[in-house]
Amino acid sequence: LRRAAGAVCAAGRELWTFSRNDPRKPVYAAKVATALALITLLVFLREPSDIVSHSVWAILTVVVVFEFSIGATLSKGLNRGLGTLTAGGLALAVAESARHMGDQDIVFLIITTFAVGFATTLIKVHPQMKLYEYGLRVFLLTFCYVTVSGYNTGEFVGGTAVSRFLLIVIGGAVSLAVNIGIYPIWAGEDLHHLVARNFARVAESLEGCVDGYLTCMEYQRVPSKILTYQASDDPLYSGYRAAVEAQTQEETLLGFAIWEPPHGPYKMMKYPWQSYTKVGGALRHCSFAVMALHGCILSEIQSAPENRQVFSAELHRVGDEAAKVLRELGHRVKTMTRLSSPNILSEVLHAAEELQKKIDQRSYLLVNTDRWGEDTAASTTTCSRHEAGAGASRDNEAPPPPMHKSESNTSLARFDSAASWAAMSLADGLALKPQGSWHHRMPPFHPGQPLEAAESRTYESASALSLGTFASLLIEFVARLGNLVNAVEELSDKAGFKDPVEQPSVL
Amino acid sequence: LRRAAGAVCAAGRELWTFSRNDPRKPVYAAKVATALALITLLVFLREPSDIVSHSVWAILTVVVVFEFSIGATLSKGLNRGLGTLTAGGLALAVAESARHMGDQDIVFLIITTFAVGFATTLIKVHPQMKLYEYGLRVFLLTFCYVTVSGYNTGEFVGGTAVSRFLLIVIGGAVSLAVNIGIYPIWAGEDLHHLVARNFARVAESLEGCVDGYLTCMEYQRVPSKILTYQASDDPLYSGYRAAVEAQTQEETLLGFAIWEPPHGPYKMMKYPWQSYTKVGGALRHCSFAVMALHGCILSEIQSAPENRQVFSAELHRVGDEAAKVLRELGHRVKTMTRLSSPNILSEVLHAAEELQKKIDQRSYLLVNTDRWGEDTAASTTTCSRHEAGAGASRDNEAPPPPMHKSESNTSLARFDSAASWAAMSLADGLALKPQGSWHHRMPPFHPGQPLEAAESRTYESASALSLGTFASLLIEFVARLGNLVNAVEELSDKAGFKDPVEQPSVL
Repeated sequence: LRRAAGAVCAAGRELWTFSRNDPRKPVYAAKVATALALITLLVFLREPSDIVSHSVWAILTVVVVFEFSIGATLSKGLNRGLGTLTAGGLALAVAESARHMGDQDIVFLIITTFAVGFATTLIKVHPQMKLYEYGLRVFLLTFCYVTVSGYNTGEFVGGTAVSRFLLIVIGGAVSLAVNIGIYPIWAGEDLHHLVARNFARVAESLEGCVDGYLTCMEYQRVPSKILTYQASDDPLYSGYRAAVEAQTQEETLLGFAIWEPPHGPYKMMKYPWQSYTKVGGALRHCSFAVMALHGCILSEIQSAPENRQVFSAELHRVGDEAAKVLRELGHRVKTMTRLSSPNILSEVLHAAEELQKKIDQRSYLLVNTDRWGEDTAASTTTCSRHEAGAGASRDNEAPPPPMHKSESNTSLARFDSAASWAAMSLADGLALKPQGSWHHRMPPFHPGQPLEAAESRTYESASALSLGTFASLLIEFVARLGNLVNAVEELSDKAGFKDPVEQPSVL
Repeated sequence: LRRAAGAVCAAGRELWTFSRNDPRKPVYAAKVATALALITLLVFLREPSDIVSHSVWAILTVVVVFEFSIGATLSKGLNRGLGTLTAGGLALAVAESARHMGDQDIVFLIITTFAVGFATTLIKVHPQMKLYEYGLRVFLLTFCYVTVSGYNTGEFVGGTAVSRFLLIVIGGAVSLAVNIGIYPIWAGEDLHHLVARNFARVAESLEGCVDGYLTCMEYQRVPSKILTYQASDDPLYSGYRAAVEAQTQEETLLGFAIWEPPHGPYKMMKYPWQSYTKVGGALRHCSFAVMALHGCILSEIQSAPENRQVFSAELHRVGDEAAKVLRELGHRVKTMTRLSSPNILSEVLHAAEELQKKIDQRSYLLVNTDRWGEDTAASTTTCSRHEAGAGASRDNEAPPPPMHKSESNTSLARFDSAASWAAMSLADGLALKPQGSWHHRMPPFHPGQPLEAAESRTYESASALSLGTFASLLIEFVARLGNLVNAVEELSDKAGFKDPVEQPSVL
């Protein structure tokens, strides 16, 4: 008993924190309870007079129709009303024909029921009819009920049917009045905030990825939740995942928002809710680029820290500027203001160019030059020796020529790579890295024994190239930002966003 | 009128093709219709005797509980039964106490209704209670109805309540009998096939991406549906998108499958359905790598076709082998057989290594060596001239030394890059490339006027590096395959897959 009491207490605490986190939830619950209490009161007042015997219809309507957002309530209410009316009409027609059939009436009714049931259900499961699924369900229910009960009582039209419909209307009216009258919760507003909020989350993920990459963050063990794309509280991961996952929610909210009348800041007939989901989709397209960046951190093949440091300033700047653009766009969408200038991207594009130039200048860090001449081994070796010798003899003060530079660099990288290779193999032995398929299947490596030269070089060049991949994915992200800016601009045109008020700080 | 008839005809044809594509849908519709016809027949037979006046409960139960899959039907039926029973019990207790209250009874009932409505609704909207949402709805409905009608008729226990419950049981029993007895549709089977089918779709996407990249497929205009991540019939895109999108469906099916009793090939108590969704998640993780590969095709920065040709054989082989592994895994999951050997990855790993070696040998194609010595311009120029001269004078028959080679290559690449740059700028002017933000904001380029050298070189090196990015993403995909193999192996252990029958061709 005590344990049960403890469980109830825990559940109560959970509900309390849940309510604190989103106060709209208890408000919604209170609204439903109010609507039900009102209906109960009506029943006890016995007004209108029929209400007692058919009160179930009013209660049913409230319980079923009263949804969280107003759009959902309207959509369900309309579905219910239409379904009931059409089904009632059809059932009356069918039952009336059955009465003129004599002995065959029962067979006729059963065949009709079968046919209507078959057609309605088949239409219901068609993917395009998802919005009307509830209406079709109500249609089927009402049709069967009216046919059956009407046939039995011999009374198809009359007090019962009318008062039943009246009670459904009462239930729907009470639901709507309470739902709109008290603290309305709009699906459109939810959609707007959901789309706006995800900008900041993607920006966080992006910054986290760039920082993580530069600080050589490594997962000791990649969480299996990430590997199977389940929810996880890894901050880098949850940010972009939220944007990707929001799709279903955005579509549901869109389905409700289009039912809602103009309200609050959305004062426009045919408000372009569709454009919000487009912005959400464009943000998702950017999120996939962040996901690819995160993939570089998750990957086993990692470039040497000192190489990353070379590009650190440029990578940082691109990441910061891109995150700034994302936050700015999110802020604009949230406050429904236009972009103040078309050049929102200029800074980040400049940063990306700088990064690209730097890559250009230092691209020897991204590749392994050792093998360039492998098919022409003899000539290359002599040549490069010759060259190095010539360079050294000619000017000792100038930095070494590129070929030389890259050689010294790769030998350093090789050392590092061999060390991390050993560490990885050890970790593998302890089954710490479940993703470790890449070298799992490789011939086992014994620390202390020299690696085979070819293998070592292969991994080293893979690791060097991974830095180039990270940089070029980051640049791809910047390119996708343009698409996102277009989507936001389209939205602000269609939805008539305000012109920005000049900030005092700008003047 | 004619137009309406045409619309009906079109809808009918649409339904017909829809039924042809998935014959289980019309079967389901026929099953629902059968159950309803049976209930109607029972009403006409007037057996059990109470059925006429309360027939609505049986019909309601069938319409509401009869879901597509057996798991969904069981889950809804259980929810409904439990909700009705507990609510009935609680309502009886409340109404009984109300009767001893004298004048205050109505106030007490209304307050209780409010409290129960509030608590139930609050619990209902908690995300963890999503599975029991329907049960809580039924609970609330029944509680209100029993309280209200019981108070009014003064009859809380007795014939009405019992026969009502009896009819709900009849409706549920008919639904279950028809649903399981005739052509059962299992959610677990759906889940199994859904997961297995997506392997082939991702494999198709992967092959398409590699082929498209090597044939220098370019989107004249990237479909805006891809840029906003909406459904599109682009074959490369729809394949991996299906795997990514399947997540919601997999989770829903999992929620139903766990309710289903052991059946067919899933003869095991507590069958590990969870592992199927894990395999689906691991496949999703791979799909994101394919998505990144597709991003390379969508990107504006493209490497020169002749460079791609250099790596053509290796890229092709990795793509083919990886697709083969995916199809093999999908086949194993589909036929529920174990992997025949742990070395399923050996071929693809070997191919990836070959690719990596090739990159190693030809990495000068991936970078732009022109600027390596930019900070040490003087020494480099003299040195490389010296070197080239030396190389040429010494051996004319051997291929030119690497430094030389890369120079000739980059000048070629520059030409190509400048040409495509001009083409892109032109296309931009016609607003053909909506993603064209990258050079949108760049100073306008006038064909015929020489590009600024620095700019041209920046883009050219970016384009060269993009080939390296594609290759390293492909290798990353191969690395992720290991994780997928682990997930499939875990599944085959937990679900007790059959040992593979040796193929005659293997012997």
